[in-house]
Amino acid sequence: MIKYPNGPIYIKKEKKQKKSKTELSFSSANRGMNLEEDINISNEYYKEKGICLITKRPTPINIVKVDYSKGAKIIDAYFEHQSTTDYNGVYKGKYIDFEAKNTKNKTSFPLANITSHQIEHLKNVLSHGGIAFFIIQFEALEKIYLLDSRFVINQYENGDRKSIPLKTFDEKGYLLERGYYPRIHYIDAIEKAYFIK
Amino acid sequence: MIKYPNGPIYIKKEKKQKKSKTELSFSSANRGMNLEEDINISNEYYKEKGICLITKRPTPINIVKVDYSKGAKIIDAYFEHQSTTDYNGVYKGKYIDFEAKNTKNKTSFPLANITSHQIEHLKNVLSHGGIAFFIIQFEALEKIYLLDSRFVINQYENGDRKSIPLKTFDEKGYLLERGYYPRIHYIDAIEKAYFIK
Repeated sequence: MIKYPNGPIYIKKEKKQKKSKTELSFSSANRGMNLEEDINISNEYYKEKGICLITKRPTPINIVKVDYSKGAKIIDAYFEHQSTTDYNGVYKGKYIDFEAKNTKNKTSFPLANITSHQIEHLKNVLSHGGIAFFIIQFEALEKIYLLDSRFVINQYENGDRKSIPLKTFDEKGYLLERGYYPRIHYIDAIEKAYFIK
Repeated sequence: MIKYPNGPIYIKKEKKQKKSKTELSFSSANRGMNLEEDINISNEYYKEKGICLITKRPTPINIVKVDYSKGAKIIDAYFEHQSTTDYNGVYKGKYIDFEAKNTKNKTSFPLANITSHQIEHLKNVLSHGGIAFFIIQFEALEKIYLLDSRFVINQYENGDRKSIPLKTFDEKGYLLERGYYPRIHYIDAIEKAYFIK
């Protein structure tokens, strides 16, 4: 084994397996607060049922070194920030694009972990007639909302506070139903927000 | 430096820099046959001009080991096959999805390097009303075509030959104009194929 100065830290097997498709378990015990996982599983459900096709963009990785002696093994690389959003796809022919974020905050959603690149990306999506929103999980409140990206963009660019109050989510957003399968039934909210006139 | 059994093979600096945004040079000398690069540059152009928003999905990477002692350095990882296509985005509100492939073949496009996952993905896109196609470059002929995914799916699933003859591209496809900037003017073909009735 290769010795590293401080020793490599392994990604725990359990953690990795949890994300694999075969390991998806729908017991209520596992139905925790992992927003990304819940959305991925919901997307899988939507795909299988032919409801919509939304996929997660892979995390971009900056590759520095590849060892080709054992079949293209990456030996030096770094995670990069997504310059777009995490999810996009198609529903009823329309382009769908969204970012999912979790917050431990109970009263507002801090805008600190949204990048200016993501705001630019969402503005572009809107300018081309796409549907763009955020799925925000208030972990402590056990509540997940869909909020149109316009409210977030506006607050990000013109707001005098660096967060969006929970009140805005209650008034302008859509509370998402949590369930067994799909875990987060966000298509209902898309339907209400963008398709039912 | 860490010693590996067979020594690591480095990705050449020049190659890496060639792909970076700052290094994009539009001299005709560089205007080679790198289809992916040409499409990425065209997408950048389309984004800047507000014509459409198409992005490349990052290559999915299976991460085995991360060393957190120096700020999340990936030290063992492998490239994975894209289970979807390489490109998607929005044009005039509609969902766009496509795969780009190069062939050295002069008379037909071999279907061998299209995966069944990609075919399934494109069928799903079509079923949800999205626009799905291939951009195929015949390197030796210096020709690039846009061909609706239906022809490829049909040939993949029902065809008695494992390739699509050039004739099909001439008859059913759209020859793409190559230029200075954008390098491949594929939006014109999308317009003709899907928007002008």
